[in-house]
Formats: sequence, C-alpha cells, structure tokens
Amino acid sequence: MNKFVAYSNSEIIRDLKENVPTGRVNISPDFLEQAENDQYGVKLADGLPLALIEAKTVKDVQGVLKTARKFHIPVVPRTTATSTVSGSDAIAGSFILSTAKMNHIKEINKADQVAVVEPGVINQELDDEARKFGLFYAPDPGSKKISSIGGNASTNAGGMSTVRYGTTKDSILGLKVVLADGREIQLGSRSLKQAFGYNLTQLFVGSEGTLGIITEITVRLFPIPLGSSIMGLAFFKDMKTLSTAVTEIRGSGAYPSMLEALDADTVKALDKYEGTHYSENAGAMLILRLDSSNDEMLKTTENILAKRGGQNLQLTTDPKEAAAITKLRQDMLPAVFANGQHVMEDMAVPLSKLAEMMDYIKKVADQLHLEIYTAGHAGDGNVHPTIVWTKTDDDSDDIPDAVQKALQLMFRKALKLGGTISGEHAVGLLKNQWNNEELGDDVDMIQHQIKALFDPMNILNPKRKID
Amino acid sequence: MNKFVAYSNSEIIRDLKENVPTGRVNISPDFLEQAENDQYGVKLADGLPLALIEAKTVKDVQGVLKTARKFHIPVVPRTTATSTVSGSDAIAGSFILSTAKMNHIKEINKADQVAVVEPGVINQELDDEARKFGLFYAPDPGSKKISSIGGNASTNAGGMSTVRYGTTKDSILGLKVVLADGREIQLGSRSLKQAFGYNLTQLFVGSEGTLGIITEITVRLFPIPLGSSIMGLAFFKDMKTLSTAVTEIRGSGAYPSMLEALDADTVKALDKYEGTHYSENAGAMLILRLDSSNDEMLKTTENILAKRGGQNLQLTTDPKEAAAITKLRQDMLPAVFANGQHVMEDMAVPLSKLAEMMDYIKKVADQLHLEIYTAGHAGDGNVHPTIVWTKTDDDSDDIPDAVQKALQLMFRKALKLGGTISGEHAVGLLKNQWNNEELGDDVDMIQHQIKALFDPMNILNPKRKID
Repeated sequence: MNKFVAYSNSEIIRDLKENVPTGRVNISPDFLEQAENDQYGVKLADGLPLALIEAKTVKDVQGVLKTARKFHIPVVPRTTATSTVSGSDAIAGSFILSTAKMNHIKEINKADQVAVVEPGVINQELDDEARKFGLFYAPDPGSKKISSIGGNASTNAGGMSTVRYGTTKDSILGLKVVLADGREIQLGSRSLKQAFGYNLTQLFVGSEGTLGIITEITVRLFPIPLGSSIMGLAFFKDMKTLSTAVTEIRGSGAYPSMLEALDADTVKALDKYEGTHYSENAGAMLILRLDSSNDEMLKTTENILAKRGGQNLQLTTDPKEAAAITKLRQDMLPAVFANGQHVMEDMAVPLSKLAEMMDYIKKVADQLHLEIYTAGHAGDGNVHPTIVWTKTDDDSDDIPDAVQKALQLMFRKALKLGGTISGEHAVGLLKNQWNNEELGDDVDMIQHQIKALFDPMNILNPKRKID
Repeated sequence: MNKFVAYSNSEIIRDLKENVPTGRVNISPDFLEQAENDQYGVKLADGLPLALIEAKTVKDVQGVLKTARKFHIPVVPRTTATSTVSGSDAIAGSFILSTAKMNHIKEINKADQVAVVEPGVINQELDDEARKFGLFYAPDPGSKKISSIGGNASTNAGGMSTVRYGTTKDSILGLKVVLADGREIQLGSRSLKQAFGYNLTQLFVGSEGTLGIITEITVRLFPIPLGSSIMGLAFFKDMKTLSTAVTEIRGSGAYPSMLEALDADTVKALDKYEGTHYSENAGAMLILRLDSSNDEMLKTTENILAKRGGQNLQLTTDPKEAAAITKLRQDMLPAVFANGQHVMEDMAVPLSKLAEMMDYIKKVADQLHLEIYTAGHAGDGNVHPTIVWTKTDDDSDDIPDAVQKALQLMFRKALKLGGTISGEHAVGLLKNQWNNEELGDDVDMIQHQIKALFDPMNILNPKRKID
C-alpha cells in the first residue's frame, strides 16, 4: 500500500544501512517471513517487517532508532524471540531490532557477586559461567536454555526457584538503555544497596521494549548454597489438597527453593512422554527442593506433607536423581504440547487463594468440555493452565470460542482473587487488552503518560504491553 | 513578607479546615516551632510551616492537597520525622502533612505472607505483630523502634539484615498512593509474582514523598527461619582486614543475615558507653548472624574468619546472649553521638571496593585531623562514617569546613568506586545537590520529567530528593 507521497522502501533501507555501522541488515523476504513470528505462542503478527537488523554494537542500536525516527517506523526489539505473549513478533513494515548477537559476558566478579552482560547472553550460559566462580544466576524460566538475559529483563521472567530467589527484577542491579531519542543512559549500579535516585532500573525491567532498548545488564549472582540440597517428589489426591500443603510449606520457615505442581492430566501426559507410571496413583504431583537444608527444615517439610495428604514422598540428595526430577518438570511442556493445538496461560494469585484458583480451573474445564493441563510454580501462587484442542480440518489458526471463554473466565477469577493475569510471561500483544481491567483507569492512563515521556513518537514496540 | 495581593493565612487555614474532615490541623506557633525540624540530622529547615496536619483518613490527605493546589502551598509529608537527610523538615509557609496517626495494621495474613498497613505503623510494631503469626517483617533500620513503614517505604530504608532479606523495596508488594491531583491509585497487589504493568510500585518506593502520598502499604512477611540462629562477634586488626573477610563470607554460600562492622574508635566509644572492654585488643569488630544454619554454613564461616585474621571469635545460639550482641550494635549510634556535634553519613560501594573505601576514610580522617567513627552494614558494602566535632563557642550550627571537605572527599570516592552516596538514608535536603554528579545529566533530567508528570504544580516535598 503506497501513500500519496511516500518514501520508497529502498530509500529507507539505504538510510538504515548507512546508520548501522557493524550490524547485519536483513531484507530478504524469505528471511523476514521466517523471522515474522516469535518461536512460541499464538501467532499474532500482522505482516512482514521491512528489515531485521542484527545489532552488534550500541552504535547499531542507535542507528536503527535514528532511521526509525526519521521515517516513523515501528521498532520491535527482540533477542531470541521466545516470548509466549507475542511480545516480539513483527508489525507490518517495522524494523525488527535483534540484540541477540550482542551476547558477550563482559565480566563476572566473584567479590562483587555481579555479572555484567550484553542483552543477547543466554540465561543458561550465564549461569554455567557463574558456577565456575562458585556463584549462580538465580532466575530460571522454562526457557532458560534458549532465552536471553535481555529478554528475561524485558519481561521480568520468573522460573522454578523464584520461590526462594525472586524473579528477574530481584536479580537486576543496573541497566544501560538506549532511549528512543538515541541517548544511552546508565541506570542503577553494581552496588547491592541503592537509595539515591528514583528507581528507574525497575521501571525498565518488565517494560517489554516499550520504553527503551536494553544494551547492558548488571545482574546479581548468588553464592551456591552450602550444605545439602534435597530434591523431592510427593503425590496428592488433587490440586486443591496439594495447594494447601504448598501454602503451609511456604509459610513454615523451610525456605524451599522449588515448589512445583502438576495436575493429574499433566502427569498422564508426562507418563506418556517419558514412559513413567506416576499417574497410576496421583491426582497431583509436587516437585520440591530445599537448599542449604538443616534437620528442622527437612523435618518440618516432611511433617506438613504427611499431615496435608502428601503420599509416596521420595527425597534425594543424589545429584543424578535430583537432575532426573528436574528433567520431569522441564519435559512437562513438550509432553503437554504434544497433545494438540494449545495455549499456555500464566496467572498468579495470593497463596491463600491458590487452592480456590486450582479448583476453579478444573470446574471451567468440566463446564466447557475442555482439556486443561494445569501446572506451575505453586509456591508463588503462579499457575500455568494450558488449554489443548484438536485442530479442525478448516486449517484455521483461530482460537476456538470455548477456549477464549475459558481464558476470560480464568483471567477474571485471578483478578477477583486479588491476583494478576501475568505472573511471569508479561503482556505483549496477547493480553494488552486487559490493561484497564487489571490496572484500572487511572494507572492505565499513567502508563501511557510514562510511555509518552520516554517514547513520544511511539516507535518502540507500539501496541504491545500497555496499548 | 506579604505579596501585593495575597491570600491571608487565615483564609488559607479556613479552607484547609473545611477540606480536612477528621484530621487535626495544628497552627499554634509553639507547636509548629517544635515540629519544624526532623528529629535527627542536620537542621536545614528554612522557616515555620503554616500548619501541621495530622491526617487520620485518606480524605484528610486529599483535603490537604486540595487546599495546597488552590493556594500553591508546598506540602511536606512525614510520619515520625526520623529522616537523617532532612527529608521532612519544614519549608517556610508549607503544610506539613503527617500520616503518623494513620497507624493501623489493617491485616496480617499468614497464608499470603503479607501485611496491609497504614503508613504510620511503626516498624517494630509490625514486626512484633507478625511474629505472633510465625512471620517477621525483615527490614530493620537503626530507627526500627521509632520509624514507620510509610517513612521506610519513602526512603527505601535498609538495616542490619538487609544482607540476607533485602531492603524495604524488596518487602513491598503494593501501595496505595494519593497523587498530587487528589486521586488515590492502587499499585501492585498482594501477589508474590507480578509481570503485568510497568513497575510503578518501585517508582514510588524511595521517592521521598515527591511523587505522591503513601496511604497504604502491602508488605511481604517472611517466615521465621527454622533451625538455629547463630550470633557472633569477631575482632580484626583493622577495618581493611575485616572488609576482606566480610566480602569472602558474603560470597561463600553461608547466606549470613548480619555482617556489621565497627571500627576501633567506634568500639572505644561503645566501651565507654557500655562499660565493656572490647577495644583493648580490637582494631575492628564484626557482628555476624547466621539464620537457618547448618554445619557447612557454620564451618565455612569459621574457616574464613580464621584464615582472614579474625580473632577471639565468640558464637552463641542462646537468645539472651544474642540479644546482648544485637544491643551492642543498636547502642553504637548513641555511643558515638555522645562525643559531640556529629554528622552521620551513608554510602555504599561494590563489595570488592569495601576495603579500599574503609582505608580511604581512615586517610581522610588523618589528613584533615578529624574524628571519624566508621561503622555500618559491611556485608552490603554500606558504610556510615560519622564525623564528630566539638562545637565552638560561637553557638553556630554550621558544619566546619574540614567536615564539609571530608564529606565531599568520601562522596567522590564512593562514586569513583562505582558506588552510591546513599545506600539507605535517601537524599532529602542534605544530598540533593549531588544528583547530577551521581546520576549524570540525562537521568537527572528524566527524574524531573517524571516528577512533572506526577506533580506538575511541584507542591509535593519540593526542593528535596531530585531538585
């Protein structure tokens, strides 16, 4: 579609190439088609981007924004494009600005307990490197092996050990950010304590590329805990019972570092995928871990499990056995996804409401005759119900009405219980229509005022997150 | 000083009283004179306020702002006025808006591990109440017994157990805030995980009353750790040696919950105050605590102390003995302050730079012939050098030139080492001239843009924090 007097694409690309000194500017239609969508999630991209720029330096990032400002081109930032909420799939005619190739670990400092990394560094790689220093990078989203620190920071990603070590926001001490106007600013520092300026670092964490482009991240690394780590499995008659036990363990002072729940259908899917037999006597499965444990922590956890209906408790300190249990949790997603078309959701409720939320999800599945596999980070009150359906032969990518209905019901319930419709996956294109309902009129408007302050031309990931 | 056509004070007070339905409006000059300054810190107030309003309800807060907007009156928010940076002392002709009487603990929820409180609730009272539920409120500033959760939130207060449990920001999940325009908004929630909107909660934490008036706070409570808490004392030849040991313990995986350092002069002052004899063979004293300890945590800590020059290690699990050690730390400030006029400073550096910072402070004291007592939260790289001097007989409250010079030198050094000139005391009137130097041109300007967004009339605690 041509405007009456419009710049030609070739003019725009010429300008872009002039402004990007070292990065690669991809404009081949085949390449762009492949890069249109995020790897995961519902496909919501509305057309091909104009170019995908693989930035290698801050100057490249600034150059992309310069051309974008000149021609009013939307910029979609991404690293490895593993958003589950269509956070970084293409906007028609946009620049996709990938910082995946800015992937150097600049520093790991044992004494300061920090790492300084570029945004494209893969979470697992940073963690592996940190462990060589007796430290670890705590946030461990399911996408740990394929997602980046930049993406994790932009979405405030969570994970399995969030229950003890916090989400990504809790591990971020400082950021360098290129603003829409091209200036690079430094926020925060490597100091573990900071009470000087406004906390702009945390304003950018979780802002999903709508306020600026992250070019460097200073993260906190934790020391590897001393003493034995105990990994365990326990089984319950249903998710409601499990939830009650989880809430009590979390409140007990045992400081578990993992409290993961899988419902009966999820365990069945897992058995099919792994060739195991857990589902034979499990209405729900709990995976738990205690770090730096002592006798009281272990005894208390065991007592609560016994008292609250936990059965067939298996505990191990053997690293190989522990790794096998962790693998169960990691394989859960592919095991569920293998059953058909699916949408995985993400909501979090106060711990006291977890049992009620679990129960409600089951009722919704029954009422709407849907397969809903519910698993998640029970210790945080954070659940991931995955709705699975069989594609009808009309080849449509549309989400069936019953699925839409179920999502709406679950979202409203989570909000009614004082929770959020995004515990750790962020908002993206998938949930941006829910801003007003979750945040209310006033805060919805304030978000737009802040967006306008940082990005008055609205070129940074427009129509995502807040819009 | 009268303007040509000005509202009379009585008109203003009449309007104020009409707008404040339940709170108390104090205008007696005696009362106002007493309330002019913060309890602590350098006296920087520049004149009497017009009124001090003790708000009892949100409507009172909104009413004060209504009158303030109408007559363009600066509003100085406070609770118990224990700022150490002149954060809440009077501005001439201002309204001091105290929320100290909004002091109800609205809810303590054991299952959710949260409390919902009004801003005037005293830190210690919340902690005491939480402990009845097997929980505790972690942030423990030196002012724990007299400062409020609202004030702690406004300054992002730290404390002794920050080293394990984080500063106030890490314990705040949600806020209600009255904006300058009178609207009350809700930020965050009681969900432990939140990845929906921009993190406006953390923008308000530490904003020192310049962006809005906090009217309700939802805080996270931690479970009381299981297993023994070990409290200890160790002695070193100097602060540099101590700092090296502290950095190593912090990085060891022992997860200490207290690593407090006192230099030789501080220990001497303490001995004088307490009648103890610690200074006889101590160039520096370390107070440490391990919660939920296990054998490896303890053994590792002991080994590091022995290897790094720690002497006369005393460890105890006896609650009475532990309390006596904690009291030493708590008495440290009055013990030092008893020696004369003083200014207590607050800066934080990366852990690897702590020894260098300690050494530098000692050199500054020697060069400028000053008494500097240095103590602080060594495990966070957060030090409080207190400069003490004898008042000359000219009755002046001015800070001597050498003291000013020493402060400047220490601030510049902390910044040069990648630290901050405020680790946990915030900025107030005392350090607001340092914004540009610590944050740089761009971020300094962005702070003002954010301030203008929330408070376009600049009535909320003007000339503090960012100005």
